[in-house]
Order: sequence, then structure tokens, then C-alpha cells
Amino acid sequence: MTDTFEIEAADLVARLSLAEKATLGGGASFWESAPAQGVPTFVMSDGPHGLRRQEGDAADHLGLGASVPATCFPPAVGLGQSWDHDLVRRVGGALALEAQDQGVNVLLGPGINIKRDPRCGRNFEYLSEDPYLTSFLASSWVNGLQAGGVGASLKHFAANNAEYDRMRLSSDVADRPLREIYLRAFERVIRDAQPWTVMCSYNRINGVLASQNKWLLTDVLRRDWGFKGAVVSDWGAVEDRVAAVAAGLDLQMPGGTEFFNGAVVDAVLEGELSETDVDRAATAVARTSLLAQHHGRDVSVDYEAHHALAREAAVRSIVLLKNDGNLLPLEPHGRIAVIGAFASAPRYQGGGSSHVRATHLDIPLSEIRTAAPRATVEYALGFTTDGSGDAAALRLEAAQRAHDSDIAIVFLGLAEAHESEGFDRETIDLPPEQLAVLEAVAAEQPNTVVVLSAGGIVHLAPVHQLAPAILSGGLLGQGGGAAIADVLFGAVNPSGRLAETVPLRLQDAPSYLQFPGEHSRVVYGEGLFVGYRGYDARAQDVLYPFGHGLSYTDFSFDALAVEGDQDGIAIAVSVQNLGPVAGREIVQIYASKVDSAVSRAPRELVGVSVVEVEPGDSVTVHIRVDRRDLAYWDDRFNRWIVEDGVYRVAAAKSSRDIQLESLVEVVGDVDRSVFTPNSTVAELMSNPAASPIAMAAFGGLMPSADAGAELGMDVMKMVASMPLNRLITGTPEAEGQLGALLEAVNSAATAPSADNN
Amino acid sequence: MTDTFEIEAADLVARLSLAEKATLGGGASFWESAPAQGVPTFVMSDGPHGLRRQEGDAADHLGLGASVPATCFPPAVGLGQSWDHDLVRRVGGALALEAQDQGVNVLLGPGINIKRDPRCGRNFEYLSEDPYLTSFLASSWVNGLQAGGVGASLKHFAANNAEYDRMRLSSDVADRPLREIYLRAFERVIRDAQPWTVMCSYNRINGVLASQNKWLLTDVLRRDWGFKGAVVSDWGAVEDRVAAVAAGLDLQMPGGTEFFNGAVVDAVLEGELSETDVDRAATAVARTSLLAQHHGRDVSVDYEAHHALAREAAVRSIVLLKNDGNLLPLEPHGRIAVIGAFASAPRYQGGGSSHVRATHLDIPLSEIRTAAPRATVEYALGFTTDGSGDAAALRLEAAQRAHDSDIAIVFLGLAEAHESEGFDRETIDLPPEQLAVLEAVAAEQPNTVVVLSAGGIVHLAPVHQLAPAILSGGLLGQGGGAAIADVLFGAVNPSGRLAETVPLRLQDAPSYLQFPGEHSRVVYGEGLFVGYRGYDARAQDVLYPFGHGLSYTDFSFDALAVEGDQDGIAIAVSVQNLGPVAGREIVQIYASKVDSAVSRAPRELVGVSVVEVEPGDSVTVHIRVDRRDLAYWDDRFNRWIVEDGVYRVAAAKSSRDIQLESLVEVVGDVDRSVFTPNSTVAELMSNPAASPIAMAAFGGLMPSADAGAELGMDVMKMVASMPLNRLITGTPEAEGQLGALLEAVNSAATAPSADNN
Repeated sequence: MTDTFEIEAADLVARLSLAEKATLGGGASFWESAPAQGVPTFVMSDGPHGLRRQEGDAADHLGLGASVPATCFPPAVGLGQSWDHDLVRRVGGALALEAQDQGVNVLLGPGINIKRDPRCGRNFEYLSEDPYLTSFLASSWVNGLQAGGVGASLKHFAANNAEYDRMRLSSDVADRPLREIYLRAFERVIRDAQPWTVMCSYNRINGVLASQNKWLLTDVLRRDWGFKGAVVSDWGAVEDRVAAVAAGLDLQMPGGTEFFNGAVVDAVLEGELSETDVDRAATAVARTSLLAQHHGRDVSVDYEAHHALAREAAVRSIVLLKNDGNLLPLEPHGRIAVIGAFASAPRYQGGGSSHVRATHLDIPLSEIRTAAPRATVEYALGFTTDGSGDAAALRLEAAQRAHDSDIAIVFLGLAEAHESEGFDRETIDLPPEQLAVLEAVAAEQPNTVVVLSAGGIVHLAPVHQLAPAILSGGLLGQGGGAAIADVLFGAVNPSGRLAETVPLRLQDAPSYLQFPGEHSRVVYGEGLFVGYRGYDARAQDVLYPFGHGLSYTDFSFDALAVEGDQDGIAIAVSVQNLGPVAGREIVQIYASKVDSAVSRAPRELVGVSVVEVEPGDSVTVHIRVDRRDLAYWDDRFNRWIVEDGVYRVAAAKSSRDIQLESLVEVVGDVDRSVFTPNSTVAELMSNPAASPIAMAAFGGLMPSADAGAELGMDVMKMVASMPLNRLITGTPEAEGQLGALLEAVNSAATAPSADNN
Repeated sequence: MTDTFEIEAADLVARLSLAEKATLGGGASFWESAPAQGVPTFVMSDGPHGLRRQEGDAADHLGLGASVPATCFPPAVGLGQSWDHDLVRRVGGALALEAQDQGVNVLLGPGINIKRDPRCGRNFEYLSEDPYLTSFLASSWVNGLQAGGVGASLKHFAANNAEYDRMRLSSDVADRPLREIYLRAFERVIRDAQPWTVMCSYNRINGVLASQNKWLLTDVLRRDWGFKGAVVSDWGAVEDRVAAVAAGLDLQMPGGTEFFNGAVVDAVLEGELSETDVDRAATAVARTSLLAQHHGRDVSVDYEAHHALAREAAVRSIVLLKNDGNLLPLEPHGRIAVIGAFASAPRYQGGGSSHVRATHLDIPLSEIRTAAPRATVEYALGFTTDGSGDAAALRLEAAQRAHDSDIAIVFLGLAEAHESEGFDRETIDLPPEQLAVLEAVAAEQPNTVVVLSAGGIVHLAPVHQLAPAILSGGLLGQGGGAAIADVLFGAVNPSGRLAETVPLRLQDAPSYLQFPGEHSRVVYGEGLFVGYRGYDARAQDVLYPFGHGLSYTDFSFDALAVEGDQDGIAIAVSVQNLGPVAGREIVQIYASKVDSAVSRAPRELVGVSVVEVEPGDSVTVHIRVDRRDLAYWDDRFNRWIVEDGVYRVAAAKSSRDIQLESLVEVVGDVDRSVFTPNSTVAELMSNPAASPIAMAAFGGLMPSADAGAELGMDVMKMVASMPLNRLITGTPEAEGQLGALLEAVNSAATAPSADNN
């Protein structure tokens, strides 16, 4: 595909000297790229759920200064729970406007790393434990942003799933989980949304720093996926610029490293670095600069409208986890006790580079009062997040308020000190003083609603036991307070769904024993079985499954129609609203290969559709499953393979709430395997074309019938696993025989008639 | 240490031509080494729980012919449950006598691979899921055998923990589990018992065939452990003899590969193989020959006495898993229904290369009749193991017999077809027709005893629900029938203990999702957390824990005394027999490091003692914990390290039945780590000697106090993980500063006063 920006960039670069080209490979300052003849600088800014734009002196050598106010949309942990790609695209568009307003050309996001373990300190910046859902939303985010003329920086590439020792940690991952879980969302977003840039991560992948990883940055990203944009380093991720440029890095950030530009020039002159690599890097940076120039424009931003969008996004991010006896929505009158520090001082975003100075902040307590003007709303702090105050007295006051009311709304969650970029959590427990408050309140007030705020999942089993109704918003951004009130009183019917499983115990997490690693190394021991894939594969009970979320109405699924074609599977399913109010259902499609020849999760998310249905109405939803989403990564041939045969397709309300299932036949990819001296007897015998030839060749070497009795076993099972070169061996003649046999079986097996085995 | 056999062997080899030396590297026949001038052939034989000696034409090209009768002792699955190193030594001695009697110089055993997963087809040949217990018993086995003048072949070296694709499978294991779990038993046995030979396995380790793995055969086995003996290939394990000799293999087996002797000669002449390697291999083979010559002698074997020993070993291998209401031991009168095919046709050993032609076979049904001559013993087949017969009628008959009796003894288990060398099980369930019989019997007869025979563990939750008493012997060898009767009627008080955890569900097994692997590759994803280490680390309930076993009497532990010294820990504990009969208790010592700096299992077996106590008596047991058994493998420095500080020592009846605990201080190994450009700020700051120097050097680079508020986090946590070369970078001066800083902190940190941090 012709890329005119790339062509123009290459032209510009061709006119530059080696030194000028090298200069383009390092930033000019903390947030700006370096300029060169014909290549203006472009400006980057932290994000991604809002701008963290530092101006002038605020960008010190660590990038820690004050930023300009911007709309704080829900961080990824919230937005991921919307499952709503249209909403996410609109948020992307709004971010683009604010970026243009502040002169920013590239927003550093979205963060699309997989939530491998609940303890990862940066999970609030990531969308899901599932790569399909992640890319489904992230592609929309990038498309929305870039349609507004601002480039994305897809991050953190790759396998950056812990904060522990993050600049040295090697994520040791086998090929299949790497491709199928950790790289898959990157691959899809690059294919579907062509982000301007990709940000390489701090960590190592299988021993090699991401910033210096040729396999990652060149073989996979550019060769396999056709990425045309620039690879930007995470800030401080480069150890050796020359090695990084050779591996495929284009732009080292932050600036202030002009010294390394000279190192690049020297390396080229000394023959240690190819000038082609410097050209590639300079061209990628110049292309980004051209994109920025071309798309930059003057805008005026309606920050009030953006606040409204932030509130809408927040409301869609809220998951109704539990609602016994339809306690929710609440009536907007009577006596309401609001309890918990987070009701008056909400936790609405995570700490670290993504931290936004919000333009405005909705306070839940005030919004509840606004939403229920006729109600008597009494507030009790309940607990503090810094250990100050008299815990027993606060608890007693809360219990008293609850006792004196018709309903109690308890705000629980994690404080900023409990989680942020830079470190991982050691526990997922809620602070014990918060649970004590909930216990005291629930003892006095059966009508207790819990509202949770946390960037990572928390251990909810005790909350589940105590509270009849639970709302979880993750972190909701600046409009979260109003959004919570909207859901509590039914102004909006909740439609959020969990993007991460809530286990019964942290110890059940598939990665539990291998997180975060030690001695700068972590083995991804659970392999493919991340998140619901792991819980399902071990048939473990969970508290709230992936995809779970209740509504104020009831939906029924009907008439599932599934048809396979050469591009995938076409699905139609009817969704009826049986309840009294309008609502949004998230139709989730899971697929699995029946009798797969490889290890696979019991089911994998392959399709999502959001549908709004009026009471009593039915809507038929059409979903396409891309053929590529049925594939597994074959580590023998280093390619994606769609297995031939029957797939089970499920329309579901969560990964554990399958409504309808159907089987469908899919024509798989052709098996191009060839036999080698290392092929086993069993492999030859199971191939219909090769088997008669093989039998004729080594029939005489097979064990006699009575050998099995002597050994107390079926001896053929033992012989079957022998590689040919151990059975036919030991003489010069044997080598010839083996060669002839392989030639015969390979030409028979690859003949057209054998193609379909 | 001077080894006179090695010196003499080197002398002999020095007189041989290159071609003669190469000849020594390949077998002369299926079971014999090749001779050379002054180096007679020696004879090997399959084992290890009995001789499988093939004579003359019986050894065909696959080694599958008939063998000479020999005593069939309990296979390792049984013997491992004895936890009795003295018994195992006596079995080793008896095996040596039979080997001498049959002209065998080297017996191919013991098998000491770790039972990583319950489904491994060859688990019946292995001792335990725990490396300490494995080496504790295997060292005695080797010492017993070799004291009788017959060499052992410690196998299968290494990480050969599945039968799936066993000749190609790569076991991908990280350094710590490899050293601490999979190699640890080999290391201990080589240190404690100096086996004549080690047999390398079929599989690959981290991609490299064991037979061609220089790291394994040379760096670890010879350099790290000082092994002096010969490395013999498993039969057919060598793909490329030249590569194997270079890696450290000494003897390729089986014979019939003279062609490769020439290849070795050619490789030396062409400079592709060092003659030193050929000399090493020839010397190792000649040394084994000399040992065989020196120790070979004429013996006469009392096969009756060996049968009695087989019965004694069997009785010690039986584990009383459950005994509600003290149903066992049985009274030897009344009406006894014996049910199940295994009562009349016992399953007593596994299939494959270890399969022995027994000299005699005790039949449980007959032995029960002998043990209870006054009882009315009625037999019902109950089920067949080959699907023949009318299952419903057999079940009905069994239920009727149970109904008409005072007690029912039901023999359940796995048939030969369900498990053997050469393939892994896909399920650990008992056959459903057997469970149906048990259900029918238990419905008619509350006094139901189950006797289990299986080479691998089976899913026992349904059996546990139905039967008040359960005996499990694993596989018991030719004396098992009488041993079962001995325990049933109380002639012997059972003292076996589980050497492998019985989980509630197969899905709970730590390796469940990563077994057996696919595409010739398996990731040991559970890392260190194998067997009870994994169940404990996840705090998972199990059905019967590792080390579990009941007795007909009650033991109490008292007066635990624990003292640390420079060689380890000295432990004394008093064991009192509170019950009415004499009995043997297995005192199990588990240790754990309090607040370990590395990932470790909650507790690890580090000591065992078997004690016989008369009713009412107390015996003080003394156990030494070797300092080396407290160590972990440090993958940064490639060495064992004993951590400094407090260890928790537990005296226990099983891994989940801790009786007494005590804390003890151990002086650890000195930390010799040095700071590098890749050291982090946190590492410097946590070192008392380096910290003030570091603060002075980069204090100015630290973030300001208000940066934390801006980012909503503790910024020092982020900076702490920065490697020095990312903080001090970007200019030529920085490189100098960094070098100076490192020199300063390293000389301060390694000064004597800092040694103890």
C-alpha cells in the first residue's frame, strides 16, 4: 500500500547529512522531537485518558512538573468496562480536539497491555485481560484520535505486564502466548487503525530489551504486520541507542541525549551500524512530523461538552455486579445514608504519567443530593485513607447513620497510595478498616449498596457476602460522581461489563505463583491461560466472571444463526427486552475449536455487539467473526493457522453465562508439513498417503506380537514415538534408506489428493 | 579425591589406538559394552525393581524378548511410599545378588525423575514428587546395590517427566526449578552414593537433547558435581554420536552402531572432535569395566528369602489412607466378601522396560483366605479389565455378596492397558465400571474396605465418599498379595506414607495446564511449585496430602528441640506411642525461610526418620538437616545460597499435619554481589555502605517533593527502579561519573564491615 507521507519523508531524509539524520533519532526536549531541514518538530504528551501537557519549565528532566488542565475521561480500567467501541471512538475524538487545542501532535496512548495479573500496578491504564476486547476498543480509540488529526502511540510494546523492576525485567514468554495473548491486540490495532507511532516498553522480552529487540521491532512489527509508523521509546527505555536503531527503534525519548546522536554517526562511520537503519529511523520520524504538520489545525474546544462526554463515558463504564431483590435503582426520596471517604473525595484516576489535572470534578455526594432533591441525604466519612482519625468512632457514626436511614450507600475502594504506576500491589484486599465499616453498616441496614472505586480488581468475596447490591466503576474520571448518581437512581440503566475476571481468591489467579518475578526475570508460566482462559481451563469457580454485568431490565437471546464462510463466521442473534425499562445489552460471542489438535482455552471472545432495546422490543444483532480470530499461532511453522473442522460458537452474557450455542464447520488452512528424519513412526502412520509406503519400508523392524505380553504393554505405543533416524540408523545403508523413504512419503503426502488431511 | 579405578582406566586407554578408544563408546550388543585390549565387556540389564535379564537370542533389535525369572520387588511407586531408606538399601542388596547370579554388572536404575504431573505414564518407576525424599531413598538403593558389587545407572538424566513424544520433547525449565527440583535428587545421589553410571534421557532440556547436552553432562554433572562415572545413553537416545561425545556422553547404547565408531574417528581426524573427549569417554567406560571385573563374583541366591523381602517391602509400601471408625484391622472370622478382578489377578508392576518375569506371585484372594482360615471368604469378580462379561450381572453379584457378608473388601485399580511406559494418561479417573461396583457394594455393606492398585495416583474423591477404609499400595511387586492380607488383618501395622499428593481434582495439579506439552515442547510453567509445593503455595485443599498415612496406633510428638550450627540444623523430637499396638512412625521435617527474599514454597521436606515405638513407649528421634538442603539456587550468580536469618522448622506427620514448630537462626552465605551500571537506584539506596555515597552523587537528580502531588503517586517508587545508566546518561561526562560512582560504592560495599548485609 502506497503511503504518500512515507514517500515524502524518504525524499526529505535523502537530502539530509548523516549527522542530521542521526539528530532526528533523539528528542529535542522532554516532549518534543528534534527538527531537521524540512522536518519540523512535533509535540508529544502523556495521556491517554486526558492530556498531561506540560508547558515551558514544567517539563523538568524527569517530566514531573505541573500540567495544563484537561478533561479527565475514565482511565482504561473504566472505559474497558463499557465494551462500547462507538463511545470509545468519540472519546478519542474529544482527546484529539484537546490535543490540537494545546498544540500536541501525538498523544501517548492507548495502553493496551494485557492484565495478566490483578496485582500489576498499572492495570488501571490497560483495558482488559482479553486481547480481542482490548483491540476492539483500542482500534476505535486510535481511529477516533487520529481522525481528529492527532497521532496515537500504541503502548507499551510489548509484554509489559508488571511494574516490578520494570526497566530490567525480562518477560519470558513462549511463542504461542506471546502471539496469541500479548501481541495479538497490538497486531489487530496496527492492522485496523494504523497508529502513527508505537511506543516500545521498558522491559525485556525473553532476555532482550524491547528498545533493542530486533525480533520485536523489525521482524514482527514491520515485517509480519507491515507497520509504517515510528517506533518511539518509552521515556528512558533506551540503554544503547546504536543497538536500538539497529533493532528498529526510530526515536529515543526524552530529549537531552544529543551525545547519542554522535554515537550513531560514529557507529555508521566505523561500520558497526548500517546507514540504512539510520535512514529508516529518520524517515519514520520525518513521516510523523509530516503527519503532524498535515493534520495540525486550530480548534476551539467546548470543555463543558467534554465534561458531559466524560460523564457519559463514566456511566457506561459502571458495572452492576450484584442487585439482590432489585434493590437498585433507588427511589429518590426517603432517608439516604452516604458513607465513605470516596463519596466526598472521589478516587477517579490512577497515579503516574497518565495523571491529568482535571478541568472539573463531580463529587458523588453532591451529585446524589442533586439527583434526589427530595431525599434526606446524610453523610458519614466512615474511614480515612491516610490512617488519621478515630477509626472506631468513624465506624460507629457510619453505623448510626445507616441505622437511621432507609438505605445506605457505602463508597469503598483503593486510595492513591495503594496503587499506581511504578509498583505492583502485593495484595488485592480492600483495607480492613473499610471492610469493618461495611460490616458495621450492613449489620444495621439491610438495604446497603456498595460503590467501588479502584484501578485494579479487589478481593470482593467479603463485600459480596455483606452487600445486596454492588456497583463497580473501576476509575471513572472527572464525570464519575454524576455517573454514579445516574445509575443509583436509574436515570441510566447500567450496561458495563467486567473486562477482567474477579476470582474468589487471589491465589486462584492463573499467574499467581509467577508474579511479578524475581531477579529481573518473570516466567509467564500460565502460558495461554490468562484471565478467564485460565479459570475456565481449570474449571475453577470465580466470584464474577469476565463479561459479567447486570441490568435493570431482562434480556433474552433467541434464534442464533451461525454460518461459516471463507472469511470467518456470520452470526445473527435476536435480543429481546423482557423488562420494564429500556436497556443496552452487550452480546458476547465466544468460540472454541471442537477437538482441537492444540492446547486451547475452553472458549475465547471473538465478537462483541452493543445493542439498545426498548421494553418489549426485539432486535436482531449481526456479528462477524473474523477468520483470523479463530486461528492459533503454530510455533512449528511460525504462522497463524486456522484449524479445519467444527467450531462451537456461543452467544453469551458473560464468559460463564452462555445463552445459545451452535456448531459450525470451518474450512481450515492447508497443512504444508513435510516429513523429516526427526518425524516419528506415528506421524508417518497417521498420514494416509505416507502410511502404506512407511509400512513397506520398516515393517520388518516392527516388534513381534508377543513382545507386548513380555513387557506388559502395547509395544507399538513405544515404537510409535521413535523418530525415523533412531529406527533406521547405524549403517551407511540406513542413511540412504532413510533419505529414499522421506522422498517417497513427502511426494505422496503433498500430492493434491492428500491436501485435505 | 583419588579414584584408583579411574587412574587404572586412564592407563589402559592410553595404550589404545584412536579406533579402539572409539569402539569403547558404542555397545557390543543390545546389553553389553564393547571390549578392547585390557578392557573386558560388561553386562547391563533393565530393572530396577527386579532383573529383566535377556539371554542369547531373546535380545532382539528392540530388546523385547523374554527374560529370565527374577524377584519382582515393589516398583518405585510402592517403595517410595515406605519412606524407609534402610529397607530400600536391603532391596538394593538383594538386587545385587540376583544381578551377580545372572552375570549382570550394571542394573539400569534407579529411576529418580520427579513426578511432575499425575498423568506421566512412567510415574510408577519414579519415587516421589519431592526431590529430598527421592534422593533419601535412591541413595540407599544405590549404596545397597553397589555394596553388592553391581553398579547402578541413575536415570533418566534429566527433566524427563512425561512419555509424550519422549524422544523429541524439549522440557523448557527455568534455572531455579531445574536445579532445586529436577536436578537436586541427582546431585544428592551422586554426592552420597557415587553411582557407577548415569543414564542420560531421551528428551531435550531447554531445546538440547540430553545425550548431546554439554551443559548438562559436562558443566553440571562433571564440573559442578564431580561425577567420576560413565554417562550411558538411554537405549536409542543418541541422534549424533560425535556431538554426544563432545557434550560428555561416554557410551551409546544399544550396540549395533559400529558405524558411528568410525564417525568418531573421522571427526577427530578432521579436527571436529577433540581426542581428549574420546579419551574421557573411553576412560569412563574402561573404569566401569574395571569396577565390574573387580566386584563381579559367584553367588548363590536364596530366592525364597528374596520373596520374603519382597513381601516385607510391599507391606511397608502400603498406605492406610482412611480408616473411619477403626474399621481396620479386620477380625479374621465371620463372612468376608472379596470383590474385584485385582483380588484374583493382581496388578503388581508397570509395563515397559522395567517389566520383570516374577519368580512367584502372591494372590490377594488366596492370602486373605490363608490369613483368615476361620472366616467364610466369598469372591465376586465385580468387573473385568478388558470390557468382557456382563457388567450389570457382575455388579449385581458383587452387591449380593457384599450384602450377605459382614465386610466387603473391594480391589480397585488401573489395568496394564491404562498406564505404562511409552504413553501418558489423559485422565486419572478410575474406570467408571469399577466405581459403579463400589457404589453398589457400599450401598449394601457399610463395612467396605477399598484396596487400590495403580502405578499413578487416581482420582479418589468418589472412593473417599463411599468407603470408610482405604488402603493404597501403588504397585507392590510379587509379595503384594500377602502384604495386603498382613495389613488387612493387622499382622503388620501399616506405616507407608504418600510420596505424592492426591488432589481433589486433576485440574488442581500445578502442572495441569502445561502437561504433557505439544509440538515437542513443554513449558514447566509451575516453576518451583511442583506437587505439595504448588498446592501449599496456592492454599488449595487436597484430598490426601503429601506424607499422609494412618496407623493402627496413635503417635504424639513432643519436646521439639532445634539448634542451628554451621553445617545445618540439629533436631530432636520425642515420639510417643499412645495406642494399643506397636507401630512405625515416619517423622517428617519441613523447613521454610521466614521472609525469604526469593520465591519459595511455604514448606519443603528436609528430613525424614523412621522410628518403631512399642505401645506406651517414647523414643527421641534425632535428625540432622543438611545446610545444603536450606539453600536455593541463585540464578544471578549460578550458585546455591543459604539465606541468612530465621528458618521455621516443623516436625510433621504429613505436609499438612504439622505437629510442632520452632524457629531457628541460620548464618547465611556472604553476599558477594557487586553494583553494575545496570544496578538500580533502589539497590544502591538499600545498601548501608553504598547509600550515602549514592545520595551525594545523584541527590540533585531526585524529584522534587511536589512532583508526587502532580502525578498522584510516590514518585520515589518510580525513580527507585531506574538503572543507574538511565539516570546518569546522555553526555560523555555522565559515563565518567557513573564509573566513578560504581568504583566508590563497590569498594565501600565489599569492605569487611558491609559483609553481613
